[in-house]
Order: sequence, then structure tokens, then C-alpha cells
Amino acid sequence: MATSAAPAGAQAVQRALGVLQCFRYLGPELGVSDIARALELPVSTAHRLVLTLVAAGFLERDAATARYRLGTTVAELGQLHYFRHGLHRLDPVLAALGRATRASASIAVRSGHDALVLIGGTVGAESSDGIRTPLHSTAMGKVLLAWAPPGEDDLDALPELVRLTDRTIGDRAELRAELARVRVAGYAVNDGESEVGIRSVSVPVLDADGFGYAALTLRATPELITDDRVRWFVDQALARVDRVAALLLPGK
Amino acid sequence: MATSAAPAGAQAVQRALGVLQCFRYLGPELGVSDIARALELPVSTAHRLVLTLVAAGFLERDAATARYRLGTTVAELGQLHYFRHGLHRLDPVLAALGRATRASASIAVRSGHDALVLIGGTVGAESSDGIRTPLHSTAMGKVLLAWAPPGEDDLDALPELVRLTDRTIGDRAELRAELARVRVAGYAVNDGESEVGIRSVSVPVLDADGFGYAALTLRATPELITDDRVRWFVDQALARVDRVAALLLPGK
Repeated sequence: MATSAAPAGAQAVQRALGVLQCFRYLGPELGVSDIARALELPVSTAHRLVLTLVAAGFLERDAATARYRLGTTVAELGQLHYFRHGLHRLDPVLAALGRATRASASIAVRSGHDALVLIGGTVGAESSDGIRTPLHSTAMGKVLLAWAPPGEDDLDALPELVRLTDRTIGDRAELRAELARVRVAGYAVNDGESEVGIRSVSVPVLDADGFGYAALTLRATPELITDDRVRWFVDQALARVDRVAALLLPGK
Repeated sequence: MATSAAPAGAQAVQRALGVLQCFRYLGPELGVSDIARALELPVSTAHRLVLTLVAAGFLERDAATARYRLGTTVAELGQLHYFRHGLHRLDPVLAALGRATRASASIAVRSGHDALVLIGGTVGAESSDGIRTPLHSTAMGKVLLAWAPPGEDDLDALPELVRLTDRTIGDRAELRAELARVRVAGYAVNDGESEVGIRSVSVPVLDADGFGYAALTLRATPELITDDRVRWFVDQALARVDRVAALLLPGK
């Protein structure tokens, strides 16, 4: 019993965290059977995990649909992360940058093989699009790759470079060349590579060792960020990046 | 084995969620031994849970201190909760209310025996003060109790009414009388009951059945919210509460 409890427990914890992660990808409201199918679990197991998560406030049940969604404990922990990482101090800086440029300003960090927007993101009702994007297809992702710390700079470790538009870099050699250009230039551009009609520029927020801790990004259309004005937008971001670094990495 | 795995698993999941909840109360950065002590677990068990949570991004390890804090998956799920519950649509309403009154505007819902601020909160670096407050000692809490749906309106089910200042209501009969006054008035006041020198007024955001789904609160000092102007602040909140309800409860 004592020896069998440990692995069973670890597996159950991973499954419970997996249930929460389902709400990233599968949608805002899920039934137990959706979760069971996604995690390849018996419905009874999924149901038991869901009930445990509801009891702790991590999920809540919609009385009308009898489906589940993220609960207030998730909101609370998210807020604690936000305040304790000092992200609220960055809001005025991003707002000022947005006003000065009329573009949408955001800050992202690396999370696995994705760039994760910590502040300034927007998200569709049905997905996590906008919060989490593949590294190879965005300006923020290229910045996070170009200044990656040792151990996170291996392009071969990335999953398949899926082409989201016909401009997405889908080849590792091409991505390697692009990252070399990004390092020399000091910034990255996403020119319709993740979404047609969206252009963004991104600069690295460097840590004390000169590695990219985060990416500061301005996002708009090519009508606002015209070819001629790319450098102006980059300069606007660069003008604030030390302030962002000081607030984001206070021990720096 | 099959029958023993289920309870062991459920216990492990509860413990893992308990590890995350430690970061609510105990502080922003915790060592494994802090967690083990708080949850009365062997250090090896706590360590295993922490490693599972780190692997899934729910916790992250501070390389300098070798302690743990909430990770980016928590930030991501929190953002998903925020956007999917439509809370981002409330930001401009709260901002306008804050500009009009110079008070700090927030929206809270009930979470267990506490009021949990979903938007407009602030939080200290060391605790969750400001996000989560006991129901009996705040204007938002009194509103949530006064318009509580059946099953959540039992004052005897609340834990001890701890006195946070010498004005806090610490007696159930007194609280009952206060809630009756609140229901008649249509709003609640916290006059230094949770913190000396802080005054707030709160009005209920009612659901389709007339129960309190949330509380809309204005918070400042008694110098701003003077005795004579309490009613003006209440009216400012009431003027926006239908808009808040429409955004917060779109199916209403």
C-alpha cells in the first residue's frame, strides 16, 4: 500500500493539473466527457478529479449548462502571481507606450515552446489565442529565442514549425538565420507571420546576465506600423525597456 | 491495487491543490519545509508534490533563493478566467467610476467565507490582504451576505467573527441586525471595520433571481467619503450597477 500510493498519487496530481490545462485549449466550458476524452481517462475518473477541483474552487459548475469552467481560486492565484511579480507596476508603462504609439503593447515570457503574454494580452472567448503563441511565428517568440539562456536555445528541441500563414518561418535553417539577423538588429519583426494583417515589433528585456527574460512588443496593422516607421516603433519600445526591466527584475 | 489507487489519488490531488493554496496565506516565496509544515506532510511528500507542480508550470523555482513561487501556468489560467468571465469589459466601467469619485472601485464575489476581489484589488507583497477579506468586516462582505442566495445566508455557518479593529462587528446578533439595515438601505458601509482610516460603500450586483452575485464597492478614506457624502458615493455606484450586471451576467 505505502509504495503503491506514491505513484498512484503522482499520476492523479498530473491528471488533475491536466484537467485544468484542458481549459487552455479546449474552450471556456467543458463537460466531464470532453475532459475524459481529451485526457484519455474513464469518465468516472475525470468526474472524480473535476469534483475535487470544484471543491477547492479551481473549477466551478455552470448550473444552467451543467458544464465546468475555471473557478475563483484560479482567479485569485492569478491575481497573486500578477501582484507578487510586480506586473501591476508595468501597466502604466505599457499604457503610456500604447498611447504614444497607438499600437497595443505587451510583455511576454517563455513558457515551454510558447511565448506567454503576461500583460497586455487579449484573448478570444473560445481559446487562449493571444495569450500563448508558438515561438517561431511571433516577434516576441523570436526575441525570446534570439536571447535565450543556455539550455533554451536549441532550435532542434522545438516541435514542428507549423506554418500559420504563408509568411510563417517553417524551416529551422531559415529560423536560425532569422534569429542571427534579430540579434544583430536588436529587435524582431513579425510581418503577418502569425496572422494576416498583423505586424509587430519586439525588443528583449534582458536579465543581469544579458539573457532575454521577457519580450516587450508593439502590435498593430501594417497601415500603422508601415515599413518606413518600423524603426520608430522599435525606438519607442527601446526607450521604455530599461524601465520595464527595472520593474520586472527588481534585483537586477 | 485498483481500489487503493483511487483514494490515494484523491488525497494526493487535494494535497497538491493545498500546496498551491499555501501561496495565498503563507507568502510569495516558500521553501519545501514551509509547505510540509503548513500541510503537516513529510518533507519528501511535499517535495514530490512541488516538483510535479513545477513540471506543469504551476510553480517556479527562484534560482537565487532555491524557494518556490507561483508559476506562469497560474498566470495564464488566471488570465483565461479574467477574459472568459468578461472581466476585462468591466475595467473601463470601474476606471470611469474611479475617476468620477476619486475612490478605488472594485468588484468582489463570495468565495467560501470570504469576499474575493476579482477586479480593482491591490495586494501586499507578503499576503493576499486586499484580494480576500472576511465577509463580516467589509462593506462588500455585508452586501454578499445581505443578498445571499439560499444556502449561503446562514450566519451561524460563518467562522468566528474576528475583530480586526474595535469597530468590527464581532457578534452574530449584531451582524444580523446590520444586514437587515443593509437590505433596507440597499447598500452597506464599512466604516473602519476592517482597517482604521478606511471607509467603503458597497452595492449588490443582483442576478436574475434577485440574489447578490457580486458587490460593487468604492473605497477611500473618511476624508474623501465624508459622513455627508456617503449617499453621493452610493448613488455613483448605483448609477453604474446595471451596466456592471449586464457585463458580468450577460445571460441575465
